[in-house]
Amino acid sequence: MNFAIGVDLGGTNLRIAAVSEQGELLEKVTTSTKVSLGRTAVINEMTEAIKEVAAKFGVPHRLLGVGIGVPGIVDTNKGVLRKSPNLPGWNDYPVQDEIERRLGTPVLLENDANVAAVGEAWLGAARGSQSLCMITLGTGVGGGIVSDGRVWHGINGMAGELGHMNIDPTGPDCGCGSCGCVEQFASATAVVRMAREAIASGHAPELARAASSDAEFNARAVHNLAMQGDKPAQEIFRKMGWALGLLIADLVNVLNLHVYVIGGGVASAWESFAPALFEEVQRRSFVYAATAPDEVAAAAVAKGGSSAKLRPIVESPYTVITQALLGSDAGLFGAARLPMQAREHTQRYSWG
Amino acid sequence: MNFAIGVDLGGTNLRIAAVSEQGELLEKVTTSTKVSLGRTAVINEMTEAIKEVAAKFGVPHRLLGVGIGVPGIVDTNKGVLRKSPNLPGWNDYPVQDEIERRLGTPVLLENDANVAAVGEAWLGAARGSQSLCMITLGTGVGGGIVSDGRVWHGINGMAGELGHMNIDPTGPDCGCGSCGCVEQFASATAVVRMAREAIASGHAPELARAASSDAEFNARAVHNLAMQGDKPAQEIFRKMGWALGLLIADLVNVLNLHVYVIGGGVASAWESFAPALFEEVQRRSFVYAATAPDEVAAAAVAKGGSSAKLRPIVESPYTVITQALLGSDAGLFGAARLPMQAREHTQRYSWG
Repeated sequence: MNFAIGVDLGGTNLRIAAVSEQGELLEKVTTSTKVSLGRTAVINEMTEAIKEVAAKFGVPHRLLGVGIGVPGIVDTNKGVLRKSPNLPGWNDYPVQDEIERRLGTPVLLENDANVAAVGEAWLGAARGSQSLCMITLGTGVGGGIVSDGRVWHGINGMAGELGHMNIDPTGPDCGCGSCGCVEQFASATAVVRMAREAIASGHAPELARAASSDAEFNARAVHNLAMQGDKPAQEIFRKMGWALGLLIADLVNVLNLHVYVIGGGVASAWESFAPALFEEVQRRSFVYAATAPDEVAAAAVAKGGSSAKLRPIVESPYTVITQALLGSDAGLFGAARLPMQAREHTQRYSWG
Repeated sequence: MNFAIGVDLGGTNLRIAAVSEQGELLEKVTTSTKVSLGRTAVINEMTEAIKEVAAKFGVPHRLLGVGIGVPGIVDTNKGVLRKSPNLPGWNDYPVQDEIERRLGTPVLLENDANVAAVGEAWLGAARGSQSLCMITLGTGVGGGIVSDGRVWHGINGMAGELGHMNIDPTGPDCGCGSCGCVEQFASATAVVRMAREAIASGHAPELARAASSDAEFNARAVHNLAMQGDKPAQEIFRKMGWALGLLIADLVNVLNLHVYVIGGGVASAWESFAPALFEEVQRRSFVYAATAPDEVAAAAVAKGGSSAKLRPIVESPYTVITQALLGSDAGLFGAARLPMQAREHTQRYSWG
């Protein structure tokens, strides 16, 4: 059996999995990344954990390589982590070379949103289609574009920065230097900001109550209120859906891909933001209108129902917008997929 | 010598060219398309003109095929023109099969904005880079994305509809069903609409004078006033630059391509809209900021100077935003390139 190892190196967790070429999860290990102990300690821990997992599958099994997903800007050509807000002290560090040297096996480095997109394309929401655009809703908003199973990198690996696409040119300031970016409407941070704005307006008593009683007032608390029928809380997720709808309408018009997947922690609020999202996409994208699934299925999804009916449609002109399926494992599967792809690519072009 | 024929089938003109594999324009014919005489007459005229041009290059020269650029929505897999506002009566017509049958040579059909993008990627503004996003400013705003010399089609050929990307969610209504699309700020139609709005406001006396004295008051007339220093006219092109800046900032963040080319008739107003465009891209796209050319060159372009210095930079991390170079010939070159690409593709994959 051929297998590869996928690594998800986050700001708080280090997760490692062995995955077979057929997409079976063979082994999974989670440790807490001691980022505070510094780069060397994390690299040591990662290397040891990879060796341990790999050792469980000795001869006749074959390790094809290691894929690592990291938060931040990655130079995939050089295997260097250019910049990562969550991993201070790692800027311009040649992660790939260092791990490769220690393990003696091929290593590939990739942005975490991109590996999640590869995972969903391989085994998740776009299984069978292999082409998708994934939007990850967390503290910020990330993105990844996969075409024929492979990450669309652009000229230097910075493609798919969907979180900073403009939604409202006069909207709230964004850390990227622009204002009115998607991230200002559809991230966990934005949900809390909008909640605090609603509280300040004096028209959101339930949100005010929750904020004062909950030391860790967060997006989940706001969503809980929305689920209980609180109108100001519902309005916040309607605004999120509106922004995501504008984003996806633009993406459909530009990319005309088959599947658009929404993942990340905040995606669990799907029922609260999806109706406004579909309404906006239908209104804004004439390419979507020209490629939309039949109205019954679309209405079912818009009402927060199951989108299962839409998922397996392949080689149809349909545009599918759906939830991610693999949760936090998407990144592990996607990372493990990278060395498999590299090998397939080598085999194809060295043939004959 | 191998050559191909490129056809630009517009709503008013039919243009045909023979182009060598090395990109030399061997022969060019322009006729006025008698659209009013109906589809059959146009197809007859096109077929005869192609035969005539091809006949000039007999043995030992070899015709590789014919590429046809048409305005409207094209199903490239089937070679069918789905819908074209400028060619009434052609909806769902199998142009490719029909011409192929009459000529006995391979024919490829493609959207006109896409063939222009292929032309600019092959021999124009992105020569050497082969990957670009082209924005065409005319009556409307069109677009085409080319990666490694080939059109990015998306799942059913509708990718690159850049004219309907959203700029201002509360902006003017658009024919596509949305509002605030790029086309509402950066097309010839939009320039005239904004001029009429300025006239209605009572604060644009020169525009009012031009509109009342000129039976064909158009975008060129507005631009002439802007060049003469008329502030309200200049403001219109500043608004156009702002919208194009927002568009390109989004495209850079999503696609991270090397070259962004602005073509079409209205692109000749470059000096009037480029400063606002660069200002907005620099402010809005952190991917652009991270991949921008050196400040001196950028400043030169922002000031309306020559962008020639930026053009030939290949395999650099630079993001280049520049004017199209081939004018209306881009579509002819791009259309002729299609059968050449098809042949290269066949050769590559049938090898061995």
